[in-house]
Order: sequence, then structure tokens, then C-alpha cells
Amino acid sequence: MSTEALSSGSTFPPLKAGTLRIYSNRICPYAERARLVLAHKDIPNEVVNIHLSKKPEWFLEKINPLGKVPAIQKDDKIVYESAVCCDYLDQVYPGNKLIPDDPYQQARDRILVEHFGQVTTQYYKMLFGPSENCAAAAETLKKGLMEFDKEIQKRGDFFGGSEPRMIDFMVWPWFERFHATEKLVNQIFISDGSMPNLTAYMDRMLSVPAVQKCRLSTENHLEFYQSVKNGAPNYNVGL
Amino acid sequence: MSTEALSSGSTFPPLKAGTLRIYSNRICPYAERARLVLAHKDIPNEVVNIHLSKKPEWFLEKINPLGKVPAIQKDDKIVYESAVCCDYLDQVYPGNKLIPDDPYQQARDRILVEHFGQVTTQYYKMLFGPSENCAAAAETLKKGLMEFDKEIQKRGDFFGGSEPRMIDFMVWPWFERFHATEKLVNQIFISDGSMPNLTAYMDRMLSVPAVQKCRLSTENHLEFYQSVKNGAPNYNVGL
Repeated sequence: MSTEALSSGSTFPPLKAGTLRIYSNRICPYAERARLVLAHKDIPNEVVNIHLSKKPEWFLEKINPLGKVPAIQKDDKIVYESAVCCDYLDQVYPGNKLIPDDPYQQARDRILVEHFGQVTTQYYKMLFGPSENCAAAAETLKKGLMEFDKEIQKRGDFFGGSEPRMIDFMVWPWFERFHATEKLVNQIFISDGSMPNLTAYMDRMLSVPAVQKCRLSTENHLEFYQSVKNGAPNYNVGL
Repeated sequence: MSTEALSSGSTFPPLKAGTLRIYSNRICPYAERARLVLAHKDIPNEVVNIHLSKKPEWFLEKINPLGKVPAIQKDDKIVYESAVCCDYLDQVYPGNKLIPDDPYQQARDRILVEHFGQVTTQYYKMLFGPSENCAAAAETLKKGLMEFDKEIQKRGDFFGGSEPRMIDFMVWPWFERFHATEKLVNQIFISDGSMPNLTAYMDRMLSVPAVQKCRLSTENHLEFYQSVKNGAPNYNVGL
């Protein structure tokens, strides 16, 4: 977890036979999904951090032509796209199974992830869209989160029920960033006490060992956003 | 297959206990994915066609708040999002299994679908973007398809290998529309003979019974596009 992000001009770090590798960056919520699964399932792995605005040439050529993290590699097997990585890891490493056995529950969880994708669209509009639209995006984001407040009330302590499962690790990375985001855009969309079930959920998630292992603090996230504003994104934040 | 599309103001068609229903529209490539799976696996079902520009209120309220087809329903179970519907159907109805058993092959197929999503982005840019960008989008689309020409050469007669499997039914609906699209936008991106493996694949797919059952002809597709241009999309085309 402590190696600095590799950027363009770097050389491909030689593979160790039989060792699972994840190409990641701690600031990327999609990469965090896969790191949460690795941590929760206690799968030994080595991390290669990628500089996300100056990507190594070998990463695009040999690993993921789409250039995105996470990607995972073991010997000649390479998988990318966060949901695909997570499902693959859960299938291949049987300990602490995260995907429900029931196909209908699986489908409903995937649909919930899809709905969450609509929520994060608002999140990115708020962060990176025109500033005059920021308040409206925060309002729409809040409405979207209301659905999740109702959903967690139905489902239990976690979206997975009595314990965190795949669905929790698919949505958590954005929740982790919400307090930093509120400060950054100067909008309140979750801290006003209007979603008590969801805020209690967030507190519970913070006590999950995998979350504690993978998370960056609110201060780390703010530090990263500040570096982006300054025109020099710090892809080594929190290392 | 012969019922006209239901639109706003319609009433919810009563469910028959134990009957699988698909909310669909023949012109929608995403809905076609699920209909191909139903046909190939020979799963009995009833089709409720949805008018896609005047959606029934009950569809948004009771079935899919995102408003998209396909959605499938059996009694109190509702699933939507095309990939989720297809995977669910393959899991719950075991005949003619379409998803590979090997998790790595599963993952690689899902990645290929993701790459295809990048291809269809160009497809929609070409169709619906500013006309001055049409030729450039067609060129980028062609480059994307080149990857699939190489891939099919590696994989066999079908993307699934010696027979069509899930990956084929996930990508086919766009291939079905390519000849109509070429005529419509007056650009050649697949008919110039530069991708012989892919054009041979398209011919093979046209002989697959599920494809024959679900497809619309090039003329049907042109008829639909023409109706869109005329400002009154015909969501009953080919019925």
C-alpha cells in the first residue's frame, strides 16, 4: 500500500508468479471497490498504484486499453472494470462469499447498484459541473440518497442485510467521500439529519475492518481535491 | 409478439399467475438482448410492448422507475437492466446455458461487452449527434469494430466459440441495425469488405433460430428511423 503511483515513462513492474496484483489508486472510488473485496475476503495481493493523469504507457498497452483502474492480474490472466473484478474475485476466492446465492437477490442488488450510478452522476455534476448548477445537483443527489435511506431501513444494518456484502462494497466508496465533498462544494446533502438510517449505516460501515483498511480520511480527500484545484493532482495522497 | 405498444393513459395489463412477462419494444436493441435469451432458451413468456416516447404511467410507477425496457416480471418478482435480466434468466432457467462456467471466461466476456459499449457510443453519436461529426464518428466506429473482427477470428464461429452464447446475444442487436444505419447516415463502416471475419459472423448469426425469431429486417429499421425523422416514432414497426 505504500508504493508511489507509477506514471508515464515508468517500466512495467515484473510479475511474481502466482501472486495476485491489483492496479489501483487510493483516490479512485472504483478501485476502492475491488480493494474492499480483496480486504474483506482476505486475499493476498500486491498493489501497483497508477498515476491517473499521467498513465504509464505499459498500462494502456499491456493491461487495460481503456486505461482505467481497477485492473487485476495473476500470471497471464487480466481482468478490469470494477464490477467485473469484484464478481470475479468473489467467484474465484470462495472465502467470505459476498454475492447472494439467490439469483433474484443478486439481480435486485445489481439493479440497486445501477440506481446508485444515477446518484453518482449527480455527485460528479456537483463536483465538476458548472458552479451555477451545483446547488441543483446537490438537491437531486439528496433526493437520490433518500431512496437509499428507505432501502437500508428495509434491508437491515447493511444493504447486504445483517452484514456487509458485495452491494455495500459497491456503493461505499462514494459515501466515504460525502463529508469531504460537502465541505468542498459548500452544499449539505447528507449531514442535515434528514436521512437518519443512512447516516447510521455510514457509521456502521466505518467500523467494518475492510473499510478501515482501505479508506482515506475526510482530510485526505480534501487534500486531494485541493491538489486538483491547484492543477497538480496528488495521486500519492495518504500513502 | 403482436400486441401494439402500450402508452401513457393505458391501464396495467393484469398478470397471469406464474407467467413470465417481458416489457419490451421490438425496436429497442437492449430489449432485444433479453428477447434473444428468452427465444434461445425457449422460455415461455408473454410480451407487453411499451411505447418508448409516451411511456405508461403504471410502467414507471410499478415496474421500472428508470423507465427503460427490457424489464421482466413473474408474479411479484421484477428485474430490469438488460444485462441483469439476461444473466437472471440464464441462472433461473437452466436449459441452453449461455454464460460460461469458467469465471475467467465470464469476466473476459463481460469486458468485451464493455468494449462494445464504447463502440455503440460512437454508433449513437453518428446517428443522433451533429451531422458535421457524422463521418468522424463512423470512422471511430469502424476502428472499434476492427477489434471485434480480430476477436471473432480468435474465438471461432461465434464470440461464444462454436455456438452463440450470452456474449453474442449482448452484441448482436447493434449488428442487426448496421446495414440500415449505413443507409440512413450515408456512411460505410462495415460493408466495404475490410472486416471479412465480422461480416461472415453476421451472416452466421442471421441463421440462428433465436435471431430469426427476434429480428427486424433492414427495411423495418429504416421504416422506424424514417418515422423518428418525421417526428412521430412508430413503436409498432414490424408488429
